[in-house]
Amino acid sequence: MGRTRVAFQGERGAFSEEAAYVLAGRTISPVPCRSFETLFETISTGKARYGVVPVENSLVGSVQNNNNYILDYGLHIVAESHLRIVHCLMGKPEITLKKIRQVFSHPVALDQCRRFLRRYPRIEPVSYYDTAGAARMVSESTRTDIAAIASPLAASEYGLNMLRKSIEDKKINYTRFFLVSKKSRPFKGKAKTSIVFAVKNLPGALFRALAVFALRDIDLTRIESQPSRKKAWEYHFFVDFKGRIDEDRVRKALAHLREIAHFVKVLGCYPLETKR
Amino acid sequence: MGRTRVAFQGERGAFSEEAAYVLAGRTISPVPCRSFETLFETISTGKARYGVVPVENSLVGSVQNNNNYILDYGLHIVAESHLRIVHCLMGKPEITLKKIRQVFSHPVALDQCRRFLRRYPRIEPVSYYDTAGAARMVSESTRTDIAAIASPLAASEYGLNMLRKSIEDKKINYTRFFLVSKKSRPFKGKAKTSIVFAVKNLPGALFRALAVFALRDIDLTRIESQPSRKKAWEYHFFVDFKGRIDEDRVRKALAHLREIAHFVKVLGCYPLETKR
Repeated sequence: MGRTRVAFQGERGAFSEEAAYVLAGRTISPVPCRSFETLFETISTGKARYGVVPVENSLVGSVQNNNNYILDYGLHIVAESHLRIVHCLMGKPEITLKKIRQVFSHPVALDQCRRFLRRYPRIEPVSYYDTAGAARMVSESTRTDIAAIASPLAASEYGLNMLRKSIEDKKINYTRFFLVSKKSRPFKGKAKTSIVFAVKNLPGALFRALAVFALRDIDLTRIESQPSRKKAWEYHFFVDFKGRIDEDRVRKALAHLREIAHFVKVLGCYPLETKR
Repeated sequence: MGRTRVAFQGERGAFSEEAAYVLAGRTISPVPCRSFETLFETISTGKARYGVVPVENSLVGSVQNNNNYILDYGLHIVAESHLRIVHCLMGKPEITLKKIRQVFSHPVALDQCRRFLRRYPRIEPVSYYDTAGAARMVSESTRTDIAAIASPLAASEYGLNMLRKSIEDKKINYTRFFLVSKKSRPFKGKAKTSIVFAVKNLPGALFRALAVFALRDIDLTRIESQPSRKKAWEYHFFVDFKGRIDEDRVRKALAHLREIAHFVKVLGCYPLETKR
């Protein structure tokens, strides 16, 4: 029997691959995808059963297009996970910190390690398209004065030596990942539900939409506005709340929301992650 | 007397430079900055009186860090403008569309011209750090088979020939720019106000915060959640509304908001742009 195929964006050793193991288990077959578009096509065409999608980072904010992709491809969110982002400096086994003159990584990762990099002004930070890609490039290069900033998984994937662990400026650096699929998945216990809705651009419209949750003591855990991409300055609101889609008060809240919003779609109902 | 110095991010010919002329007049002295951090430092240290900051695009959404920079540097928003983003294909005067094998631009710009690029599969799109930078590189290169996608201003800045105008997939492609400064600026007439606030992570907290506007018929034009960067999954809400900061109902709304939110800051009050 084949192992479950789980698509992720990036090269082997990406943070998304780490999230794939957390979300879908160690025995999966990870399917690396060049871009998010490829990832969503891979799930949509059935070449992978699940996909791992970063949607939000506690420092940088929303990974905007991924919310829209989930909506556009009509996929279901079946699980969530909050992964702590640990950036490590890594080089070939023979390299020491002293020898390094250039360090390669994704611009966001370089930005998140600014304090560390300031302490070593002779190391020049160089932007690279991907953290794991930078690790691979360093492992394949003949140069002995370069390093990469990437995940611990990337170090083991490419046989690199971790010179410094956890060099990120802020430790509250978490990324929230969704596991998405063409089909929803039954489960028991506490749940979270993700929806998206749009209201007319009228005074108080959003307030009235949020009333359907507040009046029923439903706890919103995220609200995010994204351009609708249909009309300038019209928004979709991506909202997550604690509750099961089959609960009475949730059903009533969504029916109430449909009276107010001209567009409502449930993106998924999935187990509430108890530990962050 | 010296001309007013206005800082913008990017190379000469960037969309932000175009916005600088719209927001501060044709007679300014534009000051290009390598990064947004440099831009905010340039204003903060008085090397430029104003800065032009993109904050939101109608297709892509928020330019996230810029909202945080305005907050962190304690600057005032003194004007806003919505600029239509027109992408043009440009090359050296001797180049024709047939000869082009590679086109350089910022990944977001390439992504926004996907339909056009699909019609010319023999032209390879290549990511570059900046649209105007791509135009400059093309103008300086000896290659005769490359082009750039950038603004009309970039074409005239670098003496390039516009091969195709307005090749973006969607015409509702607008970017909202703020003019920011260390000092606020008096003005008459209709206004918009930008604030940021934070509420405790309790059920209904955001609903109660929005009530202070809804109960006074104050029209919100934007609400955007951004990570607070102090605690994971705690948010700042960036809110814009129609109204002057010295209006009675606005003063009362903000006083009411301070009862509910544990953090409230006014980022600026500026003339309402009448035409979009």
